[in-house]
Amino acid sequence: MKGYVHVYTGDGKGKTTAAIGLAIRAAGAGRKVFIGQFLKSGEYSEHKALERFSDLIEIKQYGRGCFIYGAPEDEDIKAAREGLNEVRDIINSGEYDLVILDEANIAVYYKFFEVSKLLDIVRSRPEHVEIVITGRMADQSLIDEADLVTEMKEIKHYYKKGVIARPGIER
Amino acid sequence: MKGYVHVYTGDGKGKTTAAIGLAIRAAGAGRKVFIGQFLKSGEYSEHKALERFSDLIEIKQYGRGCFIYGAPEDEDIKAAREGLNEVRDIINSGEYDLVILDEANIAVYYKFFEVSKLLDIVRSRPEHVEIVITGRMADQSLIDEADLVTEMKEIKHYYKKGVIARPGIER
Repeated sequence: MKGYVHVYTGDGKGKTTAAIGLAIRAAGAGRKVFIGQFLKSGEYSEHKALERFSDLIEIKQYGRGCFIYGAPEDEDIKAAREGLNEVRDIINSGEYDLVILDEANIAVYYKFFEVSKLLDIVRSRPEHVEIVITGRMADQSLIDEADLVTEMKEIKHYYKKGVIARPGIER
Repeated sequence: MKGYVHVYTGDGKGKTTAAIGLAIRAAGAGRKVFIGQFLKSGEYSEHKALERFSDLIEIKQYGRGCFIYGAPEDEDIKAAREGLNEVRDIINSGEYDLVILDEANIAVYYKFFEVSKLLDIVRSRPEHVEIVITGRMADQSLIDEADLVTEMKEIKHYYKKGVIARPGIER
């Protein structure tokens, strides 16, 4: 089965959530999944839930999760680059049928690594490997490369009513 | 914790997938989830995966899953209406923290039930119950009612290249 490239982008809610849903669906079909989360750090509710799939889904984080509130530091960049190298090896190994690069679009946007490096990885993947890339502001070259692109468009969001991220819903 | 109303609509991929992801995240936080799938029938890979959460996530289908290829029949309408009644009771019971009405937008669009019935259910829910409604062509009155609305916009889709739904990815 040929693996395709999905991009979930846009400013609306549901990008990472859709990727997690996709991971679950793939695991339901007995496929192996790797989720690399760029920029993020710390346990979210999805990690707790995914423990039940530890035989099929592996999840790792490559970030400190805090620069969003300030300027990125060298450490953020280093974590993202090391993450990209690790993800490249994981994709090349062909051991995982689905590889999710969560928030990789943001890592590209903030120039943590070159989009060309990410494109090389995507293009040189074993044929059966499906790749999902999430995050706002997807680079046009990734959109051009992808087989499937969905823009999650924010029509309405309760953040604007002052609701903060709640465990089990937003994180 | 107050429960909000989410709508995932639009023609792009990721609506049901995001709802499944949300269910997983909620379960990870120990919350109870009910998923009612309108129009659908048959086992998808997500059902298989969700079996591992049978203590926290319940999933039911209210459809025959085939009318999309023809005209809806009385049986489809009956299944959807019975489903809506069941979901209303489930929401009112307050037993589930998150209730997902998958493809309910389509059920409204095809006039399987009145949008006003769905709105009544949403408005009369116990305060802690979070509701997620998915499907293309969401009714404007549901969008107005919702706290969070994301439009999944199709930018590119490999269906157009002739790829059919694959187990573990699309279903």
